Amino acid sequence: MSTNQSAAPDVTRRSERSRRAIYEAALALVVEVGYPRTTIEGIASRAGVGKQTIYRWWPSKADVLLEAFLDMGEQAAQAAGQVPYTIPDTGDLAADLRLVLRATVDELRDPAFEAPSRALAAEGVVNEELGRRFVARLLEPQLQLYVDRLRAAQDTGDVRPEVDPRIALELFVSPLAQRWLQYTGPITYDYTDTLVDYALNGLAPR
Amino acid sequence: MSTNQSAAPDVTRRSERSRRAIYEAALALVVEVGYPRTTIEGIASRAGVGKQTIYRWWPSKADVLLEAFLDMGEQAAQAAGQVPYTIPDTGDLAADLRLVLRATVDELRDPAFEAPSRALAAEGVVNEELGRRFVARLLEPQLQLYVDRLRAAQDTGDVRPEVDPRIALELFVSPLAQRWLQYTGPITYDYTDTLVDYALNGLAPR
Repeated sequence: MSTNQSAAPDVTRRSERSRRAIYEAALALVVEVGYPRTTIEGIASRAGVGKQTIYRWWPSKADVLLEAFLDMGEQAAQAAGQVPYTIPDTGDLAADLRLVLRATVDELRDPAFEAPSRALAAEGVVNEELGRRFVARLLEPQLQLYVDRLRAAQDTGDVRPEVDPRIALELFVSPLAQRWLQYTGPITYDYTDTLVDYALNGLAPR
Repeated sequence: MSTNQSAAPDVTRRSERSRRAIYEAALALVVEVGYPRTTIEGIASRAGVGKQTIYRWWPSKADVLLEAFLDMGEQAAQAAGQVPYTIPDTGDLAADLRLVLRATVDELRDPAFEAPSRALAAEGVVNEELGRRFVARLLEPQLQLYVDRLRAAQDTGDVRPEVDPRIALELFVSPLAQRWLQYTGPITYDYTDTLVDYALNGLAPR
């Protein structure tokens, strides 16, 4: 982000207003016309700014959209009082995972989040370069929070020491993601609670 | 499928040739221009048939594409000698699941399968009606094979009796699906073997 912090306050405020208008325009356009037909010109026109204003701050429409998503996530986290965002560690791993997955269920069902997220995720399926950027900037940082929590659980003996946390988290995160991406089943708290139970305790009898 | 089995053999052969040309044209077009810009007219033109020929057999482009995918899957299964397709039951659940997930890894990496599957999956993310049809016709029948195998494992005491097989299968199927859909990590035999181990035995110590 390149607003000039040493500029006069009214210039900074104007820049901040433009930046927010650009994010909103980008998110709205990608929902309405899809990623391929979203253009810098279209975003500029809808945001009421010159396209040079956008090019001065971002090299491409992908960059505008990725920052718009990061900003949307930060706004939502601030509104929920969750900054900096981490997964709680109460000492009860199952309870902590259930809590954070229930919050993800709420987020996935939030209409403000859902439509632009689907538009970007759909493009990522057929556009590997965008898909990988989307993951690196938006998804992987969230997954790393699960890695941290599972590592802490390994330190306390609640997760087997030989388990790879980066794969282990997929046992409860990926089923929820697939149900959301592909409509393979309903998304409920009961469902994510069950995933945590199965992932921690396994399917085989003990 | 509505080829007329009582017609003279040359008519049936001609119909079969047209049907196959239509499937190939539909799969090629959805890769090249995406689902929204694939049209019955475009498929007819590329297949060298009149568009009325297509409308006589299928009510919409979605129906053509879904049957083209089902046909591609059947052709692949026949070529691999896997008809009717089931998950083996050798009595060793882990070995059976590892085998079938390794075969899925091969399929996901097959270029003939990958490009049209990505085009249809991407559209399904933003087009709920198509997404749900895609799942009901293509994906859910495959997932039910895992349900059958997990139920058999419950009968032999290899899976906890209280486990819901339709959710349980997602612990190893969905991580692979998400890595494929979102490029969240490499897709290898080692990876799917690890998923089977974690899903059956759980992440918590025994």
